[in-house]
Amino acid sequence: ENILEGKPVIYRQITVPQPGGVEYCTDSGLVVPSVTYDLHKRLLSMAERSGLTLERRLEMTGVCASQMALTLLGGPNRLTPKNVHQRPTVALLCGPHVQGAQGVSCGRHLANHEVEVILFLPNFVKMIEAITNELTLFNKTGGKQVSSIKDLPESPVDLVINCLDCHENAFLRDQPWYRAAADWANQNRAPVLSIDPPVSGQDQAVEAKWSLCLGLPLSLAEGAGRVYLCDIGLPQQIFQEVGISYHSPFGCKFVIPLHSS
Amino acid sequence: ENILEGKPVIYRQITVPQPGGVEYCTDSGLVVPSVTYDLHKRLLSMAERSGLTLERRLEMTGVCASQMALTLLGGPNRLTPKNVHQRPTVALLCGPHVQGAQGVSCGRHLANHEVEVILFLPNFVKMIEAITNELTLFNKTGGKQVSSIKDLPESPVDLVINCLDCHENAFLRDQPWYRAAADWANQNRAPVLSIDPPVSGQDQAVEAKWSLCLGLPLSLAEGAGRVYLCDIGLPQQIFQEVGISYHSPFGCKFVIPLHSS
Repeated sequence: ENILEGKPVIYRQITVPQPGGVEYCTDSGLVVPSVTYDLHKRLLSMAERSGLTLERRLEMTGVCASQMALTLLGGPNRLTPKNVHQRPTVALLCGPHVQGAQGVSCGRHLANHEVEVILFLPNFVKMIEAITNELTLFNKTGGKQVSSIKDLPESPVDLVINCLDCHENAFLRDQPWYRAAADWANQNRAPVLSIDPPVSGQDQAVEAKWSLCLGLPLSLAEGAGRVYLCDIGLPQQIFQEVGISYHSPFGCKFVIPLHSS
Repeated sequence: ENILEGKPVIYRQITVPQPGGVEYCTDSGLVVPSVTYDLHKRLLSMAERSGLTLERRLEMTGVCASQMALTLLGGPNRLTPKNVHQRPTVALLCGPHVQGAQGVSCGRHLANHEVEVILFLPNFVKMIEAITNELTLFNKTGGKQVSSIKDLPESPVDLVINCLDCHENAFLRDQPWYRAAADWANQNRAPVLSIDPPVSGQDQAVEAKWSLCLGLPLSLAEGAGRVYLCDIGLPQQIFQEVGISYHSPFGCKFVIPLHSS
């Protein structure tokens, strides 16, 4: 056992074929390279093909993102039976895409934990199935859904969760609902958590205090704030199948902070 | 605000139409009644009908059960980059049913976190789909699958996870693979975590140190050890639809200890 303990620690346990431009490291010094959006997309489609379906990933992302949000809201100090009359309020801003569905899943888990959740989602005649499924479940919580910015609170909420952006349709940002929601978030003085924000290169319409990346980080813009990484349940071999050599940087956690190295 | 703070705390926030016989309470004193197996089953089938599919519940149960197991294994002290040569070993004993599938999901998440997982699952020609889907994913981790007790380690492992039992087929216990696995677990000196064990009334073939109930607790046998409750993501209205008046007892956690009151 003593001989084993003497072995040097290897800090570079993840190597990627298409580095995304930045390298992060964990609290314990493990190197986590960023990946390009293209590689990230291939990773997720490999997951899908292996049976780690979008539905599963939505559930896991919702759980882990809500665990992070509950910590940001004050954790056990804030959510005790004695504080039941002062429940924290979260405004959840979602666009009509997978990132929005991830947000709705997170919102359901928060509402399940007695957080006051107000979900903003613009009105569209037809939504993708991932969104409608999540909405059906969300609407069985005590959470509230609104489609107009006017129905969002005027006073500062405890936390804004931003899921307005998707990775491929930057033109969404020109739509009136997007601008209205981004303006509302910037005027409300609450800190912002962005879930799965797009790579840098585009301006951040809403400046975040924290950003949560899924699986492996993209190279995020400055306005993304402090970067966190969320485990989305991908087995090692799925990483290998897209050319990534991978050992988990998570230790016993499912959400970890990353630092620019 | 001061007036609100003065309101008395209500500790009985969950009431059930078919009490299961025992009442538990949380660390903060909230009362959590047990339910009958029949009511628990109706709760899960209502979840299924609402779109909270078995696949989703398997993912969430796997994540939360693995979070509990990682804590039992020593958490951040045990799983650091410096301890990589002394990874904890978990033996996971699964039967060919939904409870087994829950175990395999938990095993995948543990293996994803660099735990050495050895999954025992007896050989059957045909398995339920939930099991085969979980196995496909598990077999993409570094975990090992065995179908013979002879291939389980002889020396004590760090933790045994018991998912041999299901709620309805008590006769499984007479099968040779079940008896062999139970004997192995009782001979190995590792502590046992049971996930989703059946109600009391049947003898526990394997004595557990901890038992994890899903959603709401059943009334468990003495041999179930310390009882924990796992959030499985059910919105309030799903509880209401089967006649349960419900407020979350979880606070900011997803797995909480329950105490006999």
